[in-house]
Amino acid sequence: MNFASDNTAPVAPAILDAIVEANRGFAPGYGNDDWTAGVERRLSEIFERDAAVFLVPTGTAANALALAQVSPPWGAVFCHAQSHILTDECGAPEFFGGGLKLVGLPGDDGKIALATLQTALAGYGGHSPHQVVASALSITQASEAGTIYRTGEIAALAELAHERSLAVHMDGARFANALVRLNATPAEMTWRSGVDVLSLGATKGGAMAAEAVVIFDRDRAAFMGERRKRGGQLLSKHRFIAAQFLAWLANDYWLDLARHANAMADRLAERLAAIGLPPLWPVEANLVFVTLPAATQFVPSPET
Amino acid sequence: MNFASDNTAPVAPAILDAIVEANRGFAPGYGNDDWTAGVERRLSEIFERDAAVFLVPTGTAANALALAQVSPPWGAVFCHAQSHILTDECGAPEFFGGGLKLVGLPGDDGKIALATLQTALAGYGGHSPHQVVASALSITQASEAGTIYRTGEIAALAELAHERSLAVHMDGARFANALVRLNATPAEMTWRSGVDVLSLGATKGGAMAAEAVVIFDRDRAAFMGERRKRGGQLLSKHRFIAAQFLAWLANDYWLDLARHANAMADRLAERLAAIGLPPLWPVEANLVFVTLPAATQFVPSPET
Amino acid sequence: MNFASDNTAPVAPAILDAIVEANRGFAPGYGNDDWTAGVERRLSEIFERDAAVFLVPTGTAANALALAQVSPPWGAVFCHAQSHILTDECGAPEFFGGGLKLVGLPGDDGKIALATLQTALAGYGGHSPHQVVASALSITQASEAGTIYRTGEIAALAELAHERSLAVHMDGARFANALVRLNATPAEMTWRSGVDVLSLGATKGGAMAAEAVVIFDRDRAAFMGERRKRGGQLLSKHRFIAAQFLAWLANDYWLDLARHANAMADRLAERLAAIGLPPLWPVEANLVFVTLPAATQFVPSPET
Amino acid sequence: MNFASDNTAPVAPAILDAIVEANRGFAPGYGNDDWTAGVERRLSEIFERDAAVFLVPTGTAANALALAQVSPPWGAVFCHAQSHILTDECGAPEFFGGGLKLVGLPGDDGKIALATLQTALAGYGGHSPHQVVASALSITQASEAGTIYRTGEIAALAELAHERSLAVHMDGARFANALVRLNATPAEMTWRSGVDVLSLGATKGGAMAAEAVVIFDRDRAAFMGERRKRGGQLLSKHRFIAAQFLAWLANDYWLDLARHANAMADRLAERLAAIGLPPLWPVEANLVFVTLPAATQFVPSPET
Repeated sequence: MNFASDNTAPVAPAILDAIVEANRGFAPGYGNDDWTAGVERRLSEIFERDAAVFLVPTGTAANALALAQVSPPWGAVFCHAQSHILTDECGAPEFFGGGLKLVGLPGDDGKIALATLQTALAGYGGHSPHQVVASALSITQASEAGTIYRTGEIAALAELAHERSLAVHMDGARFANALVRLNATPAEMTWRSGVDVLSLGATKGGAMAAEAVVIFDRDRAAFMGERRKRGGQLLSKHRFIAAQFLAWLANDYWLDLARHANAMADRLAERLAAIGLPPLWPVEANLVFVTLPAATQFVPSPET
Repeated sequence: MNFASDNTAPVAPAILDAIVEANRGFAPGYGNDDWTAGVERRLSEIFERDAAVFLVPTGTAANALALAQVSPPWGAVFCHAQSHILTDECGAPEFFGGGLKLVGLPGDDGKIALATLQTALAGYGGHSPHQVVASALSITQASEAGTIYRTGEIAALAELAHERSLAVHMDGARFANALVRLNATPAEMTWRSGVDVLSLGATKGGAMAAEAVVIFDRDRAAFMGERRKRGGQLLSKHRFIAAQFLAWLANDYWLDLARHANAMADRLAERLAAIGLPPLWPVEANLVFVTLPAATQFVPSPET
Repeated sequence: MNFASDNTAPVAPAILDAIVEANRGFAPGYGNDDWTAGVERRLSEIFERDAAVFLVPTGTAANALALAQVSPPWGAVFCHAQSHILTDECGAPEFFGGGLKLVGLPGDDGKIALATLQTALAGYGGHSPHQVVASALSITQASEAGTIYRTGEIAALAELAHERSLAVHMDGARFANALVRLNATPAEMTWRSGVDVLSLGATKGGAMAAEAVVIFDRDRAAFMGERRKRGGQLLSKHRFIAAQFLAWLANDYWLDLARHANAMADRLAERLAAIGLPPLWPVEANLVFVTLPAATQFVPSPET
Repeated sequence: MNFASDNTAPVAPAILDAIVEANRGFAPGYGNDDWTAGVERRLSEIFERDAAVFLVPTGTAANALALAQVSPPWGAVFCHAQSHILTDECGAPEFFGGGLKLVGLPGDDGKIALATLQTALAGYGGHSPHQVVASALSITQASEAGTIYRTGEIAALAELAHERSLAVHMDGARFANALVRLNATPAEMTWRSGVDVLSLGATKGGAMAAEAVVIFDRDRAAFMGERRKRGGQLLSKHRFIAAQFLAWLANDYWLDLARHANAMADRLAERLAAIGLPPLWPVEANLVFVTLPAATQFVPSPET
């Protein structure tokens, strides 16, 4: 067993099978294949909306491309102080975003409270052109603390963001884990609550290397293909990333995998609590954080 | 059969097997696994030099990261006017390189002649700080026209480049095809002839998505890990890209695959010549270019 | 006397006087002063259109900011192969433009011919997302060869550009010299002929350091203030740059200075021709190029 | 009288005279003139070290160019949370620095305490390549709160920074005001205490538009000329910016002007204190901050 990170786990069997299966015969490259068209169709069904979908091999790329698409270089992107985009992507959002600025907001449980965003936004506007322009909100679902935004919380944050002309991005590296816990529909957890663009991660959920940028309003997707290409993120044998997504999404496999991971986390949390190690934050997805006694302390792995 | 591009082909069986095989059990993420260490060791053996190796999923990323590593933003990178980095990467080198400038040089057979480089370099220097600084030469081996630089040609170009303090980059998307045709060693075709950094492509040669930046002088590799990460190019389940490389490099598989591809190209060229369609350029790798009569003309695929 | 460049000349007396005059009393900083408002008003009168005006201290900044405003990072900007933006700005357009690509076009007399642009554009489109996107045309008026586009030529180029959704930029470092030679109105030489954004230079025309980006359609000027500020191009004591422009534009002073400079160039050209040194290109502005006999040859100054 | 900002003040008489005086005759452009050479010589005398000097027209440019020169794009630059580079330059450091990250540190009096920097640095290192790399410390002297670092404080911060391989930058927009208050030499307040690069501002101190990047170790200045040029920051008629500096530095004029400004601030602070409005922070330079009663409250000007 290995608790370090979801990235150490093997690829889920049905996804590996799909990769092998996709290897039969020739297929057009660069996303002009049937698998890729199928993923966009399938995600549009799942999200109940004709969305633009861009597959990329890493979550960092998905986040950075998504943010660059919705924020100008002089933009401020509000995110949690512990968010992956701020602490673990070595400045990818700034790089892809032409030097945009991430503004880290506090929040004990890994979540941004509405009042916190309100306070932060109060400091922006009225000082043009000296100050960067508030341009986007990025929330992580499930959060880096393993907690989950309720749809009402998302809707409230997004409403405030939209009032101030901010785009709303969701880092969904653990989207499925949040979804099955909430018992909401994908649409409810995203665009119906005001999310404009989603980084949908399959890698931590069982894929080999498969992430999607889902843009709910096609008008916002203009030239995203060029942006992805010049970011070195367009795979030539694209069918293999698409095949992973198709297998992951088929027959609720993604939800089953997420339910299983969540259940494992629950069990781990229970047992840790039983031996006097209660979780630091509510265990709502597949992440458990505890404070270990000094003797068992270990240096945290750099994998999140 | 499909002539459009190597990207439409299936993954070579032994490489697919290696991916499946790599899926047993847990392994550290982000390149801290045994497969990855093995690739660096293996490539150091093959190139007879302790090289720094960085795996990435696309050739565009390999090229753009490599160039950004050896050229400053105010640098001019000389390349062939038909080179992939100039015409087919949607400005990735400029993006990763902070706005560096690619200078396309002519050359009928897809190759840069020494005299052409000399003439181009004569126009640089002496106009600081108004002009960009000549900083790198990028050659493609095999070239975009399917031709091959001889080791003597590489050495002459590199000597001139180094005299002028330019770094030398080789785009080796079809490195293996050139290698088996030339009957030179990997070392001779690269650093022994003056190549500083190589984009070594396995994808067109049978892999699923596996490219390597090989930096022959480890001192030049400083912070390349950060550069790759912020480029969104560090795969979390890194063992799967490393496993592709290991399988490709094992038992001369990469050379066998390249020899086969070259032989197919030769046969195709022969048959076309027999029906009155001689190749535009010498067929030296696995690329054949002919001028079709109007009636059979087709729009070239965007995949190169 | 000094033939090297207009940059070696002193500031025109009335402009220097205006700087001294602007130094009376306090004034709001960063462009919130009356001088600055006056420049925008005056230029709008001169160009017969309510234009957005952004003053900056260098021509390189004006060009780079203008191009970044009308072209995305994945854009191709077509310009003459000898244009200042391509050869003398050390990659400023690429830097401000987030890595956009300048495509140099031939043209013997420093001008881009319509057919040349047509041919160039024929190579763009249809290869998305691999190729950069044709996004802007930049012409220099007067050109780097001292020649001048007729309004009909500008209109024809702009019409073609607009058909292909390209923005049209004019580098007007020597705008006044062209204007007085052509006997056209400022409006005719710019937006009435299809120019979208103009770099209007006063520095070479007698100012100390005063250039303007003039955006004819205010909708295209969104966030240009932020762009200028983050480019380090917003002067704090802004009234002094504005005062230069006001003095330059007052009572046709700018046109008188340009007429004088042109006349000097004409006289120089005549005398050179008389001793057997005819101009290389028609002398239409205040630039004269001749081929000197070897004995008198000198290395051209880096100042253009 | 006008309390909003130093940017609203007129240019000091001797500096304006020097501009007028510099207008006699021709002079080489782009910094190849005697005035410019003189400034570098004079600053090297004043700082008791052969320094590389680059003049630019804005403080934002000086800061952004300086930081880009000492930090890579994947670098973290530590600065005060209220520092001008973080709050008032619209992301210029991120833009010039290729997407580097500014990390704002707390500090009640506008200054960074040694312990605060220690704590911040403890969070960096050991998480490569996921985290940005601690690369520079930027302190403001006098600070944005009008307070002053003692030379011992600078030395302690710089020592810690250098131990961790960080470069040390000083934003000296109000350098002279700090200098005369401290009664230290320019060398003591900078490189003798560990400052590697200084933004030396003359604009707020009486010039029209004149800032200098002073790099104390010439080896660190490589290609700064190119960086400045492509940033659109190299003035063509460069003698006029140099002339401002020469006049400012001649006969301790800069120190006299700073002493006068400080004395005015002292008097203002005294009188405000006398009517019950004590300064929020010690008045050590030429900045006074008070909390006004609600009835007299005004929206702060965007000029700092």
